[in-house]
Amino acid sequence: MKTFDLSLYLVTDRSLSLGRPLKYIVEEAVKGGVTMVQLREKTCSSKEFHELAVQLKQCLQPYGVPLIINDRLDIALACNADGLHIGQNDIPYVIARKLLGKDKIIGLSVENRQDVVEANQCDVDYIGISPVFSTPTKTDAAQALGLPGVREITEISKHPSVGIGGINESNAKEIIRAGADGISVVSAIMSAPDPKCAAFRLSEIINQTKQQP
Amino acid sequence: MKTFDLSLYLVTDRSLSLGRPLKYIVEEAVKGGVTMVQLREKTCSSKEFHELAVQLKQCLQPYGVPLIINDRLDIALACNADGLHIGQNDIPYVIARKLLGKDKIIGLSVENRQDVVEANQCDVDYIGISPVFSTPTKTDAAQALGLPGVREITEISKHPSVGIGGINESNAKEIIRAGADGISVVSAIMSAPDPKCAAFRLSEIINQTKQQP
Repeated sequence: MKTFDLSLYLVTDRSLSLGRPLKYIVEEAVKGGVTMVQLREKTCSSKEFHELAVQLKQCLQPYGVPLIINDRLDIALACNADGLHIGQNDIPYVIARKLLGKDKIIGLSVENRQDVVEANQCDVDYIGISPVFSTPTKTDAAQALGLPGVREITEISKHPSVGIGGINESNAKEIIRAGADGISVVSAIMSAPDPKCAAFRLSEIINQTKQQP
Repeated sequence: MKTFDLSLYLVTDRSLSLGRPLKYIVEEAVKGGVTMVQLREKTCSSKEFHELAVQLKQCLQPYGVPLIINDRLDIALACNADGLHIGQNDIPYVIARKLLGKDKIIGLSVENRQDVVEANQCDVDYIGISPVFSTPTKTDAAQALGLPGVREITEISKHPSVGIGGINESNAKEIIRAGADGISVVSAIMSAPDPKCAAFRLSEIINQTKQQP
């Protein structure tokens, strides 16, 4: 049985770590309340990607926090990650599921209504609503959906959802109120002076918002 | 049982195709005598890589020419390729073999004597001696080994070998004479005005050289 908590989902980007090791930031973030971690690497070699994945898997295991690999199904298999996150330009979902098996978490980015309709026809484990706001951390992102887009998507999606793109302490509450089960952040934690503290504050906002009627 | 012929091994590079579709060049090349094809894509999306791989697999199957995928084990699995080619900066060989199974072809690039000693300890199916000559088609390549390097490597390697890097009609003969079982070419076929004819001429050189005492 797959159990995972989308509440506060860290997506990595080493270029935003201000020179600090990825493992340090991830571990601090988890101590602060991050519930899932996605390793996203777009430029390094497969060897380095694999080494990072193995390192993070070992780091996250004791905390029971799932490690999700972005795009690279081979890296997910090689490090026995908990799952894979694919976008609309990655390997097709059906093939990813066949190769990974039913026990792994697979998340799919949706960028518009049509993507959600298609995701509803698959047994994806969650959808990533992308991007909620425009963001400099993902240069190939589609047009920002805004809060109305999040509301529309969460209403029609049959899967749990997480918003991504330009999310931070100032707007996290609105994403949850718009119906998302969680938020994904990149720079709000990767570039925070104190990643643990940043994760803790975001986590507080999410939990408080979820408890409000 | 794995049977493959390293004699004339085309490694793709769409940027050198002079605007012609990859499938066209590959099929012409095979008609001319190419015995193996490696799909190498370093910049496109996983979706596009997968689509190209499926296309080439369908194209090559009737000819009985193996399709090898460069680096991306997930793409190799997803298109049921005949094998995978990995470099020293890709996923470690042992993991690749475990995930692909014993029936698939796995080739490994070697760049120096130490790499060959390590390859000898593995059940790789062939080694790629890389680069034989300096080449503009692979910007991250190690220092050119030259013909003495090919001779040294083929003497100590227990695996079949193919030379790669800067090989064309003018030097193909020397690579075979230096002990390699075949040659890999990129631009010599990808950029040839007539890829079928270019493959045929290279194939003739290789066959004639192998028949000489």
